[in-house]
Amino acid sequence: MNKTAALKQTFELINSELYAVEERIRAQARAFDPAVEGYVTYAVESTGKRLRPALALIAGGATGNIGPDHFDLAVVVELIHAATLVHDDILDSADTRRGQPTANAKWGNSLSVLLGDCLFSHALKLASGFRSSEMMRRMAEAASEVCSGEIIQTQRRFDLKLSVPDYYRIIEMKTGALFAVATELGAFLNEATPSVIAAMRTFGLKFGTAFQIYDDVLDLAGDEANAGKTLGSDLRKGKLTLPILYLLQHSEPTDRDRICEIILGGSDEEIATLVRKAISTGAVNSAVLTARRMLRETEEQLRVVPANRYHDALKGLIRTLDGMLGQFAE
Amino acid sequence: MNKTAALKQTFELINSELYAVEERIRAQARAFDPAVEGYVTYAVESTGKRLRPALALIAGGATGNIGPDHFDLAVVVELIHAATLVHDDILDSADTRRGQPTANAKWGNSLSVLLGDCLFSHALKLASGFRSSEMMRRMAEAASEVCSGEIIQTQRRFDLKLSVPDYYRIIEMKTGALFAVATELGAFLNEATPSVIAAMRTFGLKFGTAFQIYDDVLDLAGDEANAGKTLGSDLRKGKLTLPILYLLQHSEPTDRDRICEIILGGSDEEIATLVRKAISTGAVNSAVLTARRMLRETEEQLRVVPANRYHDALKGLIRTLDGMLGQFAE
Repeated sequence: MNKTAALKQTFELINSELYAVEERIRAQARAFDPAVEGYVTYAVESTGKRLRPALALIAGGATGNIGPDHFDLAVVVELIHAATLVHDDILDSADTRRGQPTANAKWGNSLSVLLGDCLFSHALKLASGFRSSEMMRRMAEAASEVCSGEIIQTQRRFDLKLSVPDYYRIIEMKTGALFAVATELGAFLNEATPSVIAAMRTFGLKFGTAFQIYDDVLDLAGDEANAGKTLGSDLRKGKLTLPILYLLQHSEPTDRDRICEIILGGSDEEIATLVRKAISTGAVNSAVLTARRMLRETEEQLRVVPANRYHDALKGLIRTLDGMLGQFAE
Repeated sequence: MNKTAALKQTFELINSELYAVEERIRAQARAFDPAVEGYVTYAVESTGKRLRPALALIAGGATGNIGPDHFDLAVVVELIHAATLVHDDILDSADTRRGQPTANAKWGNSLSVLLGDCLFSHALKLASGFRSSEMMRRMAEAASEVCSGEIIQTQRRFDLKLSVPDYYRIIEMKTGALFAVATELGAFLNEATPSVIAAMRTFGLKFGTAFQIYDDVLDLAGDEANAGKTLGSDLRKGKLTLPILYLLQHSEPTDRDRICEIILGGSDEEIATLVRKAISTGAVNSAVLTARRMLRETEEQLRVVPANRYHDALKGLIRTLDGMLGQFAE
């Protein structure tokens, strides 16, 4: 089963709602100038798993009901996500994403910069349709966090002084923020109490962060066919992820120096050795344990959320991600 | 006098307000994560002329008064403009802008993609602070227009079938839209009548479009020191501007074929000859006449706007741009 097929299974409860979201996303592409529509359609169709829309919808169900605004919320978070993917692929000079050529591979970097901008501004235009300007503010705030997180990540590539707290801060911003706003606003739209809204925000933030750690683990310990990329690609880009930070922390000084050398410019073979080392030394396992602890904290947020089938679905999501992480535990 | 020094002189009426806008723009940079602040400060300080903020403020004065919201409007339009410049410089692989290294020259394309995104999302976050969500909607709509216009322009580089109406559509989107929203919302914030708001919108759209034609003329007929770039750079990038479209329109078939060849891949020397030809055949002059006609239409919009010193300042702006265009008339 590939990376997120398991997560998708847990969306069964909202299958028909997700179908409606899909239709709306496609309709958004048609709102663009005909000269631009084709690019937008390609970008929104190839992104895939719709995890953030699903969370927005389920958060709505758990805190009241899934109303029309929840569909708009789902579309907005997905368009922002799609915009960041288009720009990420430029940054990474990626040729493919989920088996499809990326926008930059098809049409070049210039067009892809603008395509990301189009998706982004369109998302925020949609967001301006919400009755409460607070929705808009929080959404733009999240988008701003995502970009700032990506800047810091880019800035600190190959920076061997990156600390574990620095890593958390980066992934909370670049990944957590959009998950957080999806679940937070899902509750906010239902006029849930401040404590429920805050709990749902923390739920999204922690779930998203754990999901990012899973993704980072997958880059080291996954199998290449399912990860859809060569293992160790983060390392080659100078992205120091949690398992690597743990590996550095627990290495003897001479070993550490050697690892640093490989990170700064090792051959493909040396990188592959480093990847195996991250597994054999238990560094990957430690990262898995951390993510699983994070998921327990995620689940604790549900204490203040009414018990219903959407509440159960959120628990199911946690269990699924926990199981996905479990594959890589020792 | 350089390109916009003359325009700046006409801003005298709002000197102290523009100073306050400058302070606010700098304060916005400080709202970012400390790791990001330095990049943002650089990007917003190097953009320069503050034409869009000035128009937002003067439009406010002309239709009522310049209130606190006008300052926010001025900052938002300028941040959106700054975001597009950062991304434009990536598209054009530009090394300098107004004598300073561009963000991409200093920090590379990856960081610049993200920096533009940061500026953009921050602008829209600020815009969400307006009491009316209509403000936000129109602002995001304008941003979306700008990006779509740039996509179409990129898509149609070196496209010899580009028509004059196609050209207008592109520049109205990529340049006119942000000017239009600055003046429109300047009036909207004062709760001006729908006809005044519509007139101010058209004022901005036409003024911005004429300004873009001036910029396009400058690329052919300016002097290199003041234009801040080599003449004919639009041609080298495959951007067919109004004077070139006029030149193509009025050339004999054989001449036309030769011009097309040069556009598609002429040497620097051939491009320089083409630039001179655009001047000697009167194609540049025709574009100047068109822009000046557009400015007369811009001025007509002021008929419904109350007579006051800001109304006069808007007229002064038109006169100034008209004079700047006049340098290139035969």
